[in-house]
Amino acid sequence: MKSFACIAAAATLFALAAPASAQFAKPEDAVKYRQSALSVMGTHFGRLGAMANGKVPFDAKMAAENADLVATMAKLPWAGFGPGTDKDPRSKAMAEVWTEQTKFKAGSDKLIAESAKLDAAAKTGNLDAIKVAFAATADTCKSCHDAFRNK
Amino acid sequence: MKSFACIAAAATLFALAAPASAQFAKPEDAVKYRQSALSVMGTHFGRLGAMANGKVPFDAKMAAENADLVATMAKLPWAGFGPGTDKDPRSKAMAEVWTEQTKFKAGSDKLIAESAKLDAAAKTGNLDAIKVAFAATADTCKSCHDAFRNK
Repeated sequence: MKSFACIAAAATLFALAAPASAQFAKPEDAVKYRQSALSVMGTHFGRLGAMANGKVPFDAKMAAENADLVATMAKLPWAGFGPGTDKDPRSKAMAEVWTEQTKFKAGSDKLIAESAKLDAAAKTGNLDAIKVAFAATADTCKSCHDAFRNK
Repeated sequence: MKSFACIAAAATLFALAAPASAQFAKPEDAVKYRQSALSVMGTHFGRLGAMANGKVPFDAKMAAENADLVATMAKLPWAGFGPGTDKDPRSKAMAEVWTEQTKFKAGSDKLIAESAKLDAAAKTGNLDAIKVAFAATADTCKSCHDAFRNK
């Protein structure tokens, strides 16, 4: 029983210490996850953009719902960029994601922060505030895509 | 100017009256969206399942985070099942999604309701309550997949 208890304790420790990438059984699961999360985020961000840019009528409730989802989704993709997930043929991530991890982390943190501000702005129902926050958030998308995503 | 105003007003009316499927520029965008949302939901539901089934140690905070995401994602995919989205080669949706819309809607509503209960259970931190709610939610996944998704 003692050795079983030790193995169980070690397994627990491993599970607690495991990096985020270990949440995925296979690297391709991590790639699918991060791409799915980014895709859902992009859809809702695009709907906000259509309102911010005057392409569709502004609807405060819709804006708030979309911004809430953007802020939620913005936190998710990063766990999917673990070691080994650069090899998947569907991945568009540049090697810099892993060779410049500090910069990549700063970029993802910036998106999370700006999308939280966008969410807060959308909750006020003030279109001008949404436009400002939308532009700031869009800048974080672009700077990361330019630096870290293959065309 | 008058005719322009009429066109603009008509466009606005159309936008307001447009069904959810019109939120997507192309049917393939809708398919990608619904599959992405279901995939993200499945990842977080799977993590809850690993805890509910004792495959990984129970962590109340992680369970609550995952359940919150499941409940959020559960509301999203259905807007992506609009008319014309059955033709995409990536779609696994059976024709019954469109020929039995009432049943399909009831199934998606059931998932939304059960995942909200799962979210509430996870917030209590009670593993036994989570297990019950997880099983009920999993049943809604299975019954819809059996009836509406091609293997």
